[in-house]
Amino acid sequence: MASVIKVNLPQQFYDIAIAPGSLDQLGEYMTSLHLGKKVLLVSNPVIFQLYGERAIASLKAASFEVASYILPDGEHYKTLASIENLYNTALENRLERSATMVALGGGVIGDMTGFAAATWLRGINFIQVPTTLLAMIDAAIGGKTGVNHPQGKNLIGAFHQPRLVLIDPDVLQTLPTREFRAGMAEVIKYGVIWDAQLFAELEASQCLDEMGYIHSELIDSILTRSCQAKADVVSKDEKEAGLRAILNYGHTIGHAVESLTGYTQVLHGEAVAIGMVAAGQIAVELGMWTQQETQRQDALIEKAGLPTKLPAGLDIEAIIEALQIDKKVKAGKVRFVLPTQIGAVTVTDQVPADIIRQVLVRM
Amino acid sequence: MASVIKVNLPQQFYDIAIAPGSLDQLGEYMTSLHLGKKVLLVSNPVIFQLYGERAIASLKAASFEVASYILPDGEHYKTLASIENLYNTALENRLERSATMVALGGGVIGDMTGFAAATWLRGINFIQVPTTLLAMIDAAIGGKTGVNHPQGKNLIGAFHQPRLVLIDPDVLQTLPTREFRAGMAEVIKYGVIWDAQLFAELEASQCLDEMGYIHSELIDSILTRSCQAKADVVSKDEKEAGLRAILNYGHTIGHAVESLTGYTQVLHGEAVAIGMVAAGQIAVELGMWTQQETQRQDALIEKAGLPTKLPAGLDIEAIIEALQIDKKVKAGKVRFVLPTQIGAVTVTDQVPADIIRQVLVRM
Repeated sequence: MASVIKVNLPQQFYDIAIAPGSLDQLGEYMTSLHLGKKVLLVSNPVIFQLYGERAIASLKAASFEVASYILPDGEHYKTLASIENLYNTALENRLERSATMVALGGGVIGDMTGFAAATWLRGINFIQVPTTLLAMIDAAIGGKTGVNHPQGKNLIGAFHQPRLVLIDPDVLQTLPTREFRAGMAEVIKYGVIWDAQLFAELEASQCLDEMGYIHSELIDSILTRSCQAKADVVSKDEKEAGLRAILNYGHTIGHAVESLTGYTQVLHGEAVAIGMVAAGQIAVELGMWTQQETQRQDALIEKAGLPTKLPAGLDIEAIIEALQIDKKVKAGKVRFVLPTQIGAVTVTDQVPADIIRQVLVRM
Repeated sequence: MASVIKVNLPQQFYDIAIAPGSLDQLGEYMTSLHLGKKVLLVSNPVIFQLYGERAIASLKAASFEVASYILPDGEHYKTLASIENLYNTALENRLERSATMVALGGGVIGDMTGFAAATWLRGINFIQVPTTLLAMIDAAIGGKTGVNHPQGKNLIGAFHQPRLVLIDPDVLQTLPTREFRAGMAEVIKYGVIWDAQLFAELEASQCLDEMGYIHSELIDSILTRSCQAKADVVSKDEKEAGLRAILNYGHTIGHAVESLTGYTQVLHGEAVAIGMVAAGQIAVELGMWTQQETQRQDALIEKAGLPTKLPAGLDIEAIIEALQIDKKVKAGKVRFVLPTQIGAVTVTDQVPADIIRQVLVRM
């Protein structure tokens, strides 16, 4: 089943194309966009070995001139130094303004390639070919690009919309189970914040923690409903002035957990899972959400094989301190996205530190 | 005399306010924009010593919390490393998304501060307080920000529009004569490409090379007509898709000259002056422009105390090679802006290398 989701922004629009086997049609998809001939394909060693040749073959068949650059794998390399390497490669290959950078990989590759594309010659074309569940349904959509500062995730970045997001669900077959589960955290998030129908479909499934045991119809639904949710929200709020903040559900505590564990011990999706459990509890403490619905959320998180507890040994005061340097801080106040019912959330900066502390102590 | 020029862009608008003594009203001007309380003032040592205290006093009087950061002076420091220092300062001062970076200085300070503002937290507020003639009438307007790559000027950057450009003509009194003249190169450029009336006013003046000997009415006219020309062009073409290319008149050869002389020997405006002389000659060779009007242009350039010859010892083949890595290259072809009459230009990528060589040899 192939589907196309339209992302309509004030000055731009682009497609999210979801189709099995579409990796081999990358060149064809790009031809219709009238881009320049030069393409820089950016990937990591693992993904490039699995899918690089097919992507390049498809691009060459469509008459693109292709260079490729392999960034080292992992959040640890999501730095300005990596971006400088991309700039040097862009220069060596004489990438002009009509050229295109294609990100073939997960969120880290997408964020970095997007930032390099945003800032090379003040912005060149950019295409996302996400290969992880997380990147497919979240990171690749919406134009957020960037790298980490030694003291905080994604503090450096730019908004730069892709010209196309091409999703080939078949590549999920090689995704490690732990990363598949991490992606499911954001799927569950869309269920809680936006799409009660998606939440219900997830609840109805026997299994959520292994790609191979999930019915292909549910995989379709997970991809299309999640991408649609993200597209709906970013179309209404390209630059995070308001509505888009709801996508940060689970991310306030989540980012602090990631940051304090050095971006290595806990995957982003796992941190978001922990953050959603915390946010749910905070909402209950504030009388905004029912204990029963919180439990339904937490049951889904557990069914997806995701953590619901803080990593052992994490200092709670350090978490509270880390919240202060998050991008979501406004006028010194930490902003939380809190559920009010399944499918709906609210945003508040009125959460007393004591409530945060109390909830974290229990986790 | 105070004037306000409106810059209207599809998703944004801002004022260029030109008023003597306005440096002391910076805080008031900013209050009307409803920005967050935190301000990071970025300057260089010379300008900060001359005007930093007045700017800070005005900001504090308007209840802003002000931090400042002094970047070393000069194009040599227009690097990603300087931007990293700005990121660190932003982090230390906990600049949130509602915060504002204010650039107090010339084009280098404006470009770097703008790029840091464009990429910190994916974009915070940015205000230009230009202190050189060149920055007032060109660099500060239009949202181009960036830094140099070791192998090319402004190869790294972003479009990020300021919320306000505040021009206090009084600060030109401390601008070194050589820099004033360099700014006049871009003023003459507006005369040639857009505003025949401005060209005529410049021709009518006895003196163009010393601020102190130019009638204050002409200074007014230079600032307002130049800013209006730039605002007109960028309003019609925010991201350099078409019309905006005409602003690169004199810049094709100019950038190559700057790059090959290491950005130190020749000021940007001086390089543009040389580039305009070359472009004029190329236009004549191609039968597009008259020898007589070229001479009128060159006479203005000379009257402004600007160079009309290539720096001694510059290798002409090196210039032709350098043209190939300029941002203005499209599909391998070098783009030139060429005059057809005073006040009008055309853009072409059909200039044979032999003609370029022939013109450069004569210079």
